[in-house]
Amino acid sequence: MKCAVIGGGSWGTAFAQILVDGGNEVCLWARDAEVVEQINNKHRNEKFHPGLILPVQLCATTHLDEALRGADLIAIAIPSQALRSILGEMADSIAAQPIVISLIKGIELQTLERMSEVIHESLAIDVERIAVLTGPNLAGELIARQPAAGVVASKNMSTAERVQHAIATDYFRPYTSNDVTGCELAGAMKNVIALAVGMAVGLGMGDNTRATVITRGLAEMSRLGKVTGAQSATFAGLAGLGDLVATCSSPLSRNRSFGERLGQGMTMHETIVATKTTAEGVSTAPAILGLARAHEIDVPITEAVVDVLAGSISTADAVRRLMARSKKSEI
Amino acid sequence: MKCAVIGGGSWGTAFAQILVDGGNEVCLWARDAEVVEQINNKHRNEKFHPGLILPVQLCATTHLDEALRGADLIAIAIPSQALRSILGEMADSIAAQPIVISLIKGIELQTLERMSEVIHESLAIDVERIAVLTGPNLAGELIARQPAAGVVASKNMSTAERVQHAIATDYFRPYTSNDVTGCELAGAMKNVIALAVGMAVGLGMGDNTRATVITRGLAEMSRLGKVTGAQSATFAGLAGLGDLVATCSSPLSRNRSFGERLGQGMTMHETIVATKTTAEGVSTAPAILGLARAHEIDVPITEAVVDVLAGSISTADAVRRLMARSKKSEI
Repeated sequence: MKCAVIGGGSWGTAFAQILVDGGNEVCLWARDAEVVEQINNKHRNEKFHPGLILPVQLCATTHLDEALRGADLIAIAIPSQALRSILGEMADSIAAQPIVISLIKGIELQTLERMSEVIHESLAIDVERIAVLTGPNLAGELIARQPAAGVVASKNMSTAERVQHAIATDYFRPYTSNDVTGCELAGAMKNVIALAVGMAVGLGMGDNTRATVITRGLAEMSRLGKVTGAQSATFAGLAGLGDLVATCSSPLSRNRSFGERLGQGMTMHETIVATKTTAEGVSTAPAILGLARAHEIDVPITEAVVDVLAGSISTADAVRRLMARSKKSEI
Repeated sequence: MKCAVIGGGSWGTAFAQILVDGGNEVCLWARDAEVVEQINNKHRNEKFHPGLILPVQLCATTHLDEALRGADLIAIAIPSQALRSILGEMADSIAAQPIVISLIKGIELQTLERMSEVIHESLAIDVERIAVLTGPNLAGELIARQPAAGVVASKNMSTAERVQHAIATDYFRPYTSNDVTGCELAGAMKNVIALAVGMAVGLGMGDNTRATVITRGLAEMSRLGKVTGAQSATFAGLAGLGDLVATCSSPLSRNRSFGERLGQGMTMHETIVATKTTAEGVSTAPAILGLARAHEIDVPITEAVVDVLAGSISTADAVRRLMARSKKSEI
């Protein structure tokens, strides 16, 4: 397929390579001219994947219309809160009805909408042509072609299958799903839980505490999923548990690292400077809390993370609160 | 309460300290005279917790009857395949009906029985007086009094609550459950999944692969749990997901380390020598496979682990088999 990848960050670049490896023709758009120049002339993206050589077939551009021209598949990998504005710039360059796939794990803060909802509204693309990709897919490992599995979800299974076919390689194994809501919610929420796990790690707590926060985090994710119409199997699968465990285990995870720095005593400002890139969970946490309140669902971990990010409690207080809940029977 | 801890290994010693910290009178039995001498005279267990000082109140003995005399609570922390024989030695020294709590995570290979079933049979103790303790409780962290939560399960909730009361400390938070079967199966199976995760790590695979094996591992655990009458909530909670994640994340886990060494190319013999202590998953894997076959449940990860342990496939083949399943839709 002819593919456009919107976003030259860590995941956008790794996904572009997967598409090339899957035999597609790929043009990557990035706003940063230096990233584009490096990809085109040196087959590298030193800012996000230092030292690695990208496929020579991968080309890049700073012009959205050039990337989008004739694309059958448009993959979007940019920060969640920037999505609506970029879609506005894209609208004029999209002719027919392409398949649009969101690689973004977040919730729009202002509207509490999922990424596929924002895409549907902004581009007037039929929901049956929209897909999302999620799962335990750390970009830093995929760019090195280490084996991984993911989930492609769409309301229309043949759309999911077309994407699946385009991105299957010998190291990347995508499964299909029709639970778009569950996949997007799980992807967004796991970043918030990863912030909490990072805080516990930063405070010096061990694997017992980390596993406890992950367990309660998945329960919290599933509770909110249930009331929003998601399938519980999604949360028990690669999109939920799988992605959560990968994100919370890996030192490569931006969200976990962000939380870890806060746990070590850095201020929000110092942490933002040290982390360099966007930690999706930071903007997504209040959006998730908003969604949970709208559905009257208890999300104690998300609430604690929001309180820490707002500066109203310390990380130590947050983790103490989570480990010392009052109920006696677990379930 | 007056407590006996049977087993002076890593978990037995850490649990004995929890009991002392919970305000109980504790006598620990160990077969190894050197361990007993060190605990009594130096308040240390250098073999399993080098460098750490144990509470001065903790006493130890090599005589089972001395440890068991007058004990209201008997906690058993020995290798699963040795349980029946030790219980045989204990039977004469148990007078009234104490509470017996199993800390063991395994299945008896010969009978395919859970530890609480072996205890019930061998000691003729009422099932209502038997409890099991499980959860993300790495002994190496608990001995350092790092915060953790666990699950105490018994058919009789007041038994579970009495144990809960005895072992609650400011760093250890036990929850109660009535799902003895689920807690024991989850505890036994997670060691087998940890062997598989260790193999993947030993082969140099990253967090994406590890998270995928953990996700499918939990699905496999839940499937077998369902047909044996366990509660699905147990597998989603601390006893299932929590313990699995802790075991598969921690370099302190014997089962993960055992699998890791096999993945790095060591032979079974070299791995047994290097690991020093018992990796429960090694003897439990064939028992789980036996149980699964008796219930006609598909357990591909356990099957792959059994095949590797038997020397019939390589670790690389096992992980390849697990990552390359043929179905297209995840669920």
